[in-house]
Amino acid sequence: MFERLQKARRDAKERNHLAGLIEACRELLTVRGDANSVAIASRALECYRKLASDAVREFFAVLANEFDPDPGEVLMLAEKYAVSRSPENLIALARAAEPPRQELLRRLNRAPLGTATIVAMRAQLLARLRTDKRLRAVDADFEHLLGSWFNPGFLRLERVDWASPASLLEKIIQHEAVHEIDGWNDLRRRLEPDRRCFAFFHPVLPDEPLIFVEVALLSEIPGAIAPLLDRNHAAERDRRKFKVAAFYSISNCQPGLRGVNLGNFLIKEVAEQLHAEFPSLKTFCTLSPVPSFAHWLARVPSISCAHLKPAKVAALDALLARLRARNGDDLAGLRPKLSALASLSGDEAQAGARELEAEIEALRRLCAFYLMHGSHEDPEASDPVARFHLNNGARLERVNAVADLSRKGLRQSFATMVNYLYDLDQVEANHERYIGGEVTAARAVGNLL
Amino acid sequence: MFERLQKARRDAKERNHLAGLIEACRELLTVRGDANSVAIASRALECYRKLASDAVREFFAVLANEFDPDPGEVLMLAEKYAVSRSPENLIALARAAEPPRQELLRRLNRAPLGTATIVAMRAQLLARLRTDKRLRAVDADFEHLLGSWFNPGFLRLERVDWASPASLLEKIIQHEAVHEIDGWNDLRRRLEPDRRCFAFFHPVLPDEPLIFVEVALLSEIPGAIAPLLDRNHAAERDRRKFKVAAFYSISNCQPGLRGVNLGNFLIKEVAEQLHAEFPSLKTFCTLSPVPSFAHWLARVPSISCAHLKPAKVAALDALLARLRARNGDDLAGLRPKLSALASLSGDEAQAGARELEAEIEALRRLCAFYLMHGSHEDPEASDPVARFHLNNGARLERVNAVADLSRKGLRQSFATMVNYLYDLDQVEANHERYIGGEVTAARAVGNLL
Amino acid sequence: MFERLQKARRDAKERNHLAGLIEACRELLTVRGDANSVAIASRALECYRKLASDAVREFFAVLANEFDPDPGEVLMLAEKYAVSRSPENLIALARAAEPPRQELLRRLNRAPLGTATIVAMRAQLLARLRTDKRLRAVDADFEHLLGSWFNPGFLRLERVDWASPASLLEKIIQHEAVHEIDGWNDLRRRLEPDRRCFAFFHPVLPDEPLIFVEVALLSEIPGAIAPLLDRNHAAERDRRKFKVAAFYSISNCQPGLRGVNLGNFLIKEVAEQLHAEFPSLKTFCTLSPVPSFAHWLARVPSISCAHLKPAKVAALDALLARLRARNGDDLAGLRPKLSALASLSGDEAQAGARELEAEIEALRRLCAFYLMHGSHEDPEASDPVARFHLNNGARLERVNAVADLSRKGLRQSFATMVNYLYDLDQVEANHERYIGGEVTAARAVGNLL
Amino acid sequence: MFERLQKARRDAKERNHLAGLIEACRELLTVRGDANSVAIASRALECYRKLASDAVREFFAVLANEFDPDPGEVLMLAEKYAVSRSPENLIALARAAEPPRQELLRRLNRAPLGTATIVAMRAQLLARLRTDKRLRAVDADFEHLLGSWFNPGFLRLERVDWASPASLLEKIIQHEAVHEIDGWNDLRRRLEPDRRCFAFFHPVLPDEPLIFVEVALLSEIPGAIAPLLDRNHAAERDRRKFKVAAFYSISNCQPGLRGVNLGNFLIKEVAEQLHAEFPSLKTFCTLSPVPSFAHWLARVPSISCAHLKPAKVAALDALLARLRARNGDDLAGLRPKLSALASLSGDEAQAGARELEAEIEALRRLCAFYLMHGSHEDPEASDPVARFHLNNGARLERVNAVADLSRKGLRQSFATMVNYLYDLDQVEANHERYIGGEVTAARAVGNLL
Repeated sequence: MFERLQKARRDAKERNHLAGLIEACRELLTVRGDANSVAIASRALECYRKLASDAVREFFAVLANEFDPDPGEVLMLAEKYAVSRSPENLIALARAAEPPRQELLRRLNRAPLGTATIVAMRAQLLARLRTDKRLRAVDADFEHLLGSWFNPGFLRLERVDWASPASLLEKIIQHEAVHEIDGWNDLRRRLEPDRRCFAFFHPVLPDEPLIFVEVALLSEIPGAIAPLLDRNHAAERDRRKFKVAAFYSISNCQPGLRGVNLGNFLIKEVAEQLHAEFPSLKTFCTLSPVPSFAHWLARVPSISCAHLKPAKVAALDALLARLRARNGDDLAGLRPKLSALASLSGDEAQAGARELEAEIEALRRLCAFYLMHGSHEDPEASDPVARFHLNNGARLERVNAVADLSRKGLRQSFATMVNYLYDLDQVEANHERYIGGEVTAARAVGNLL
Repeated sequence: MFERLQKARRDAKERNHLAGLIEACRELLTVRGDANSVAIASRALECYRKLASDAVREFFAVLANEFDPDPGEVLMLAEKYAVSRSPENLIALARAAEPPRQELLRRLNRAPLGTATIVAMRAQLLARLRTDKRLRAVDADFEHLLGSWFNPGFLRLERVDWASPASLLEKIIQHEAVHEIDGWNDLRRRLEPDRRCFAFFHPVLPDEPLIFVEVALLSEIPGAIAPLLDRNHAAERDRRKFKVAAFYSISNCQPGLRGVNLGNFLIKEVAEQLHAEFPSLKTFCTLSPVPSFAHWLARVPSISCAHLKPAKVAALDALLARLRARNGDDLAGLRPKLSALASLSGDEAQAGARELEAEIEALRRLCAFYLMHGSHEDPEASDPVARFHLNNGARLERVNAVADLSRKGLRQSFATMVNYLYDLDQVEANHERYIGGEVTAARAVGNLL
Repeated sequence: MFERLQKARRDAKERNHLAGLIEACRELLTVRGDANSVAIASRALECYRKLASDAVREFFAVLANEFDPDPGEVLMLAEKYAVSRSPENLIALARAAEPPRQELLRRLNRAPLGTATIVAMRAQLLARLRTDKRLRAVDADFEHLLGSWFNPGFLRLERVDWASPASLLEKIIQHEAVHEIDGWNDLRRRLEPDRRCFAFFHPVLPDEPLIFVEVALLSEIPGAIAPLLDRNHAAERDRRKFKVAAFYSISNCQPGLRGVNLGNFLIKEVAEQLHAEFPSLKTFCTLSPVPSFAHWLARVPSISCAHLKPAKVAALDALLARLRARNGDDLAGLRPKLSALASLSGDEAQAGARELEAEIEALRRLCAFYLMHGSHEDPEASDPVARFHLNNGARLERVNAVADLSRKGLRQSFATMVNYLYDLDQVEANHERYIGGEVTAARAVGNLL
Repeated sequence: MFERLQKARRDAKERNHLAGLIEACRELLTVRGDANSVAIASRALECYRKLASDAVREFFAVLANEFDPDPGEVLMLAEKYAVSRSPENLIALARAAEPPRQELLRRLNRAPLGTATIVAMRAQLLARLRTDKRLRAVDADFEHLLGSWFNPGFLRLERVDWASPASLLEKIIQHEAVHEIDGWNDLRRRLEPDRRCFAFFHPVLPDEPLIFVEVALLSEIPGAIAPLLDRNHAAERDRRKFKVAAFYSISNCQPGLRGVNLGNFLIKEVAEQLHAEFPSLKTFCTLSPVPSFAHWLARVPSISCAHLKPAKVAALDALLARLRARNGDDLAGLRPKLSALASLSGDEAQAGARELEAEIEALRRLCAFYLMHGSHEDPEASDPVARFHLNNGARLERVNAVADLSRKGLRQSFATMVNYLYDLDQVEANHERYIGGEVTAARAVGNLL
């Protein structure tokens, strides 16, 4: 009885918050909103922050239903503009065709903590978008505005190191998405003098990294991840030995900024900054996972490709068949064999690798094929990390088998990793080729086919 | 001969810069621009910064001609959206109706110094807009984007004081538009403990004040400007005496941000901050010029108003007629009489004022009429400062004759100034009334009619 | 053979560093040193930082032998000053009696990293002082100068919190000397909103905390340490509940600053700052260990005291005898009994405590006696923590048995802790009484006797 | 009557402040002072800051009379130390011979604003010292302590430029002692990209420059001051042209730090910093006044010197005689002739200078003699600026006639200026020679003799 009463009270309160929020949003776009938008927006966001899950859903529905452009007006103005392309006609049309939601968000942003709340709102919206496609237009408005506001020209690149605030480092630990950071000692290794970590920040969210990248300064292009993360590996302090900057992890921290692609800018700005600090650095590359390789390899019926000579295709297909014959159709038998290598070292490890030579060779060649041609047959199967770097204009430089023997590495790619190379003079041309359907790769990778 | 050769070379160089700029702009919106926008944008802006005046004009013409939406596509999508308001239709329409210039500007902004250059570009554009109306749509895109980027939620309010960098103070001296600052000593008086100056800054332009306001902390609402600016007036240091914060000057510093209205936000945020610092402050008002009053008063044929009782109108009209009879039709005779008061002090000044009592009374009453009803008859004659504060939701609080005896004050308003009062609880209602055509004024001002 | 050669080379190098250092020190006090002291001092400190242990010993011997005042000159000037107390005579005497070592150190301090190196030098000196008493005068000069340079007027009090640099927090973890910090999560609890940590910094050692104190903000004076450190205890966020600031740990970080007593200043400045932040705080106290109590209790032959009535003394003595009868002469049996309480909770704990009621009562009364009168009989037995707080002018406020059941707490004091109270209005009088031989204690503590 | 009463009240208050100050000083050195020195010191300094002039005098008298070492005790300890140089004897002696005033000042320094107040106190003390020699020992204690506290190792070198706080720049204008700064525009020229200004700051006085130096970056050693200060001279922006850093002004800002010589350190640290910023800089020199030259030249009876060959001396003496014959015995006639050159330019100036060729030549040669040998005959006549730079180890590089035609330049040195050269590799040797009585000069200067 009492509980029901309490729930009723909570519900009523909730109603009030929701009603207050919706009213404030409507008011913001009226004449009153012109004069006093900061106060009204503050009220709106305070209500929003108190909403429970159901009410948030209702609010998004209102956003979807009420703040669209007027179809009749837009059509009429589009007709006028089609007749005469005068500045006045264009201005009127552009204004009418922009969903009023965008102006609403711009006005909400004027409140204290406005930007942070809008980014959080977007994260909630995305979570619902999966099940409610009607919110797609709402989301498009968020994405459009956030893309404009988080323009790289407004962001600050900052180095993250052991002198950074603990509260920031904690977020780095939490958001590292590629190679998990196992506590403060693990993090510390990644911030030693032969490592770098950089993040983008927006001025109004000074404590919130948006995206960060981890870099190792090395004497050569790395072929495996374990040595880079090894806590017991003493840091190299001789700066003259740094020839290669290897980007081995890049992680987004803000789910609300999905679609606002900052990784491309981050990598290039970091490369420039490192080059200025260490003129000896000649090579900027990645050590990257191939997260979809295992999935593709296990399911592809057979190797086929219209762009390669039939002989090559046949050779690859034979490799695949042999691999399946020895390790099961889903190749599940391959993982324990590879995994066993992890515990070996020195001579034993070399012997172990020799025994697996055929498998290793097959994985390298099939991975090269997958990344260069695999997506022609089935675009849905393409590798997201490859898409990211190739689209940025990087080149596929090397395929490394037995490069990541962690559980995740085995599961995703049978321990295979690759290097993408960023040659800033070539990225435009590479990107253009990639858009045209061609993957730029080093000759050595091509030879694997 | 040699000079002609030199000019030819300069022209050729100029051509190169212009061509480079236009090419880079086109490229930015293509596939190459996706991959390497920062580099291309940097190239574009470097070219832009080297352009001479003629080339800038040509560049703006290209912006006006090439980067409009496609009328046919927009019309087709508007028709689809009119038939079905699906998210997909809306997204496609909004994307097509937004002029590609906006995306171009967003990409240019990614270059180093991007924002500063775009703001400077807008200032040049505005200068040309006066003579070339075809640029209006281009300007609308700049204004739209800058409005979004210079959203108050992104700005930092900062106090400017004597410990501020000299380079910043120099800009304050330079941009003060209401009551000129005559050098560093004059500025210093305005930064003493009983004065405040606040400015808005954008994080990527940390050395550039956008707009600033000067405030005097007083024991009562001020009726004249001279005492506020008097360098020899010792600063009041007893904080308990501060009852009134009088905003006596507000100036924009960035011509390129015209139409991005920050004054309203600045005044209200400063009021809140002062209130937090000095809980004893009860009144937030202005001491404002009436820059169009003299012009109106000299030209208005006679007083007429449908909103006032005929008897009142007749009385005001008689006042005006008498003023003209004594001071000439254009009232030019009034200025020397008022000006003479400036050199008097003490008893003499009082005697002088008594002699002008009729004139002073007439000015106060006619100014009250002008601000409350003058624009009904002729909206073009309305006072811009009044429009600004009334539209912000302020109330017309008091009319002060003989309040600004400077040349500018005499010329603009026969030395009349007014106080607008900001009561934060009333600004919404006042603004709404103002939009509805009614000026909110204190009873005492109403009584002047 | 080769190794002997290598050693010889190392030795020769070492000789060079030592010779270079000594030569530079001598030069610094000559005419050349006047002109170019920074360069010479830099050379000296670079040599010093390369010295191996033996060479450091030799260097200290040179400091002890060569840089003393001239006895004959001082005696002659002391005689002149005894005859005539003229300014000239005094100036000459003071100059001659100051060991030239002090000027040497002042000049060494001019080099880059001078202060840090001198503090490190002192730490090495102290380590040797234990075995080589001839260095006492050298050490006195270091202490005198460092005391002057680390004058509280030059130090900055800074709050340490979760936004502090990780490199600083790491030093806090490392130097905590009272209640060990077990990793980052443990530290984090101590930096929550109901906890405070403050440290003193010297401007030229901005990354080196000199001394820090940890404080708990509570609603009442705490009687046990475990709840304060409990990681699972949710932080109190309601500021109005903070009535008591309990200093529960104070740790020095710089061994080279021994004898430069900053703790007293730190506690009082933190108390003032907390009082300004939380006007609701009425009580500033400690929760302190009694590190010498167990040692005294186990060895004191019997209770005797000339300041107390014989009856009281006899009662306390009887208590001690009974305690020994039940727990062995060295009271070793007491620890397991107390320790067992640590694993109990709720009713069990209360029952357990009831069973030990007699022991607990005895410990409280004997501890009160120990702190108030124990050192009269044997000053060497006095408790160092008590000496520190009582000398600062604090009052012995409460004795808490079963307050620290950690191994360290059991070993040092049979788990007993005490509260010292800082009443800033009373500290002068309390200190004066303490210097006069009297411990100020709360009435309740007195009643325990 | 009333006024007398008021004065009596003021006097009584003054008495109270003085009595309170003296009592607090005495208390600071007692047992109470150990416990609560910050509070007592704060009280003392608050009283001090309220003292009128007479009371300050009385306070200094107390400082002089009460806080001296005990002659009997010092004598006794000096005798013990003469008998046995044990560490204990030395420690006791050094402690007893240090005037207790120093400990008093160290304790006063613990109060808020302690250091600033002590520096101000010293400035007042110095003003009185001129008339009251009994304060010499008090002043020696201030100087000793301030010298230790303002050790260069504790100071921060900071660049002063147009982005510095106006409040700081104002102090630069005010304290410039060599070439007066005539307002903000004049200052601005001195902060352009081809000029530098650096100051030393102490961390606890962050807004107070202690000493500053002004530098011009030039392509050659400058021979006259006017071009360096000319506001209309456009700044050189091509960094590659900077070959010479000319220190043209160095000014102390804190009268209370007299005797704490920071100029030497400032010049050398600035030279190092400039060298790091501009590797092209090869020459570090000054352009300096010769403030005592005119006074010496007007009064020296005749040229005489034991270190020069008699023929040279005779030639110089003849020069002087001729100069006097043409310009009066006090050479007063020389100034208008030189001054007339100031208004000429181009060919006229050259013609004017040719006419004065003999005078100019005589001034250069006599100035060279004055600086190299003049002080041998009469040390009191030596030039203070020369003493400063030569003692720092600089070399006399060039004598420039007609180099400073300002009133001050004409008055002090008949417009003559000189360059001192800082060759950091030579400063030790030069300084040593200077201490030995020999001025190091460039060969060209020697040839003038």
